[in-house]
Amino acid sequence: MMSRFFPKSAECGHHLLFGSVSARTYAGEAVQLSLVDIPAGGVVDWHSHSNEQIGMVIFGQAVFYIGEEQQTLGPGDMYYMPSHTMHKVVALQDAVQALDVFTPVRDEYR
Amino acid sequence: MMSRFFPKSAECGHHLLFGSVSARTYAGEAVQLSLVDIPAGGVVDWHSHSNEQIGMVIFGQAVFYIGEEQQTLGPGDMYYMPSHTMHKVVALQDAVQALDVFTPVRDEYR
Repeated sequence: MMSRFFPKSAECGHHLLFGSVSARTYAGEAVQLSLVDIPAGGVVDWHSHSNEQIGMVIFGQAVFYIGEEQQTLGPGDMYYMPSHTMHKVVALQDAVQALDVFTPVRDEYR
Repeated sequence: MMSRFFPKSAECGHHLLFGSVSARTYAGEAVQLSLVDIPAGGVVDWHSHSNEQIGMVIFGQAVFYIGEEQQTLGPGDMYYMPSHTMHKVVALQDAVQALDVFTPVRDEYR
């Protein structure tokens, strides 16, 4: 049974980003989750968008570049990309999973 | 050095909810993360709020009650509580961690 409250994987969006990064997405009205899996060494290249983004690393370690800053983040570390802020993520030697949040919803990621 | 993009734990909000549930929070402009730790058997009792809520279980298993529906969720399972929808969460035999997202920001959770 389909549920608006409890989406099964088949009811989520499934996207391939930057060639090797897979994302499973689910949107509410104004906010959207995107669970991204980046392979070891994988890169989410520099980009920006009007949507505000915030998120947390679930597992693995990656270097996050946001604006003029950079930090290596691991499980439980949070990050924030204000609207129109350039950012890039590079996974280190292991696969990385992070939960991204966008507001407003990115229609291309539904 | 403090960073708007990379909040350290000390720069996050720290709250105790429903007696035994701890939350570490961080807010952007319109969206807010709340990383909640529920002890084994712990309960987030029935409540609702105007803020839209969406999230994902990180580890552990819990029964989520949303409106008239209920499901047992585990790691990687997503859930969605529309504005003003009653919800409750009961952790099973192990501790549970979930990443909640609110929009707009809940000022009492900053």
